[in-house]
Amino acid sequence: MNFHVMTLFPDMIMSAASGSILGRAQKSGLINVNAVNIRDYTDERRRGRCDDYPYGGGAGMVMQAQPICDCCDAVRRMIDEEGRSGSSARVIYMTPQGRTFTQAMAAELSREEDLILLCGHYEGIDERALELIGTENVSIGDYVLTGGELPALVMIDCISRLIPGVLGGDESALIETFHDNLLEYPQYTRPEVYKGLHVPEILLSGHHENVEKWRRERSIERTLRYRPDLIGSAVLNKKEMRFLEELKRQLQEETDASGEADISGSKEGFKA
Amino acid sequence: MNFHVMTLFPDMIMSAASGSILGRAQKSGLINVNAVNIRDYTDERRRGRCDDYPYGGGAGMVMQAQPICDCCDAVRRMIDEEGRSGSSARVIYMTPQGRTFTQAMAAELSREEDLILLCGHYEGIDERALELIGTENVSIGDYVLTGGELPALVMIDCISRLIPGVLGGDESALIETFHDNLLEYPQYTRPEVYKGLHVPEILLSGHHENVEKWRRERSIERTLRYRPDLIGSAVLNKKEMRFLEELKRQLQEETDASGEADISGSKEGFKA
Repeated sequence: MNFHVMTLFPDMIMSAASGSILGRAQKSGLINVNAVNIRDYTDERRRGRCDDYPYGGGAGMVMQAQPICDCCDAVRRMIDEEGRSGSSARVIYMTPQGRTFTQAMAAELSREEDLILLCGHYEGIDERALELIGTENVSIGDYVLTGGELPALVMIDCISRLIPGVLGGDESALIETFHDNLLEYPQYTRPEVYKGLHVPEILLSGHHENVEKWRRERSIERTLRYRPDLIGSAVLNKKEMRFLEELKRQLQEETDASGEADISGSKEGFKA
Repeated sequence: MNFHVMTLFPDMIMSAASGSILGRAQKSGLINVNAVNIRDYTDERRRGRCDDYPYGGGAGMVMQAQPICDCCDAVRRMIDEEGRSGSSARVIYMTPQGRTFTQAMAAELSREEDLILLCGHYEGIDERALELIGTENVSIGDYVLTGGELPALVMIDCISRLIPGVLGGDESALIETFHDNLLEYPQYTRPEVYKGLHVPEILLSGHHENVEKWRRERSIERTLRYRPDLIGSAVLNKKEMRFLEELKRQLQEETDASGEADISGSKEGFKA
């Protein structure tokens, strides 16, 4: 899979994409990350400037349409030259105004051959560029960042992990989080006792079925406590449904007793 | 504000935090980003290894409690030595199992003097380390990444922007997104006509009040279309409420006419 990142900070993309799993995946040819500097497509008379004041006033600068549209055309031609179809490559604009990125969206995007990621900066991008290119707008979360570079890296990392071969067999279980819409269970490794804290007995039992049951129940418990918004769509069997009902009843009792909803997680900082 | 990042990949943190606004904020002493290598705190006999197999079986490796706890103790001592209180510094563990990071959480955290960010890798961290340290668990979104480094950078970027002085006067309007729970309005800059597309007339009018009204209405429209989950908590005046009701009616008519809900945004890719 080929990621083409249109950005004002190509070095940031290339250096972050060279490490760890992404670096290995690039070396083995499973993915390719190519950062293209939008500044290289500015009109000569503008001498590398590609932002200007917003019409209608207001603070901040807006990135102009022309360098972005020309840069995008160049990327599409590059894809054509490599024997694939530049015109059919999807262009994702990273913006808090977009649809929220999820694991399901990552799975969908991981089936593309080419993906063009457009990183904005300053106060945003001239709306006409987005319209002419036909961008799909994606947000990694409800918070404001300096530019689209970190969001692009987040998307590249998440999507790459879903491409067959990128993760070794040992790592692939990581995508278990959000599987069945449940949070991951707690993990323990050696030693058995650390600072007086013991690994739960059941994990040392070697009884595979009981371990699985314990882990599923911890996942359900965590999801109910910390992400009650997900629990409604969790995929549970009948026994697990009953376990969940019992948990809810217990939590309600705790809440009634303390006069405060522990389930909100907002009682003390946001411990989870 | 001081960010202390406990990580296996300190270079990734330091290089990403050296650019753009974060780099400038560090030079001017408004923030300080300090990446600490967890690997430096492994037991000598382990020769730099700080992961091991999970108890109870399963794919992947788990980070051991000891190097993390010792690293955290060292960071707290470092904070003490600089004349602040290491023991009262909050420790945030980046994990998809955590509470979802938002702009409001960023605002809360921006009031801290020190923040310790713990980045996991592999299949996660021994639960006892999280318990002993008393971490607060935060997720930047519902997707799985290779490690906590990109999430830590996202948090550092977002929080830093809220620290007085980090953004110049010209940039500060960026935090307008999610203000009043609305998405940002579309932006335009020069030229007035680009590839046949005109800047909306009203933005050229110089009539400040009409521009404001137009922008608010575009914000309301976008939020309704692309993030209907936010519109219920939008802060609107009476006229804007009526505008919203009219919009809803129109969208409903479009939906009835096309037999498909355009509001979902999922009709064709996820254009926004």
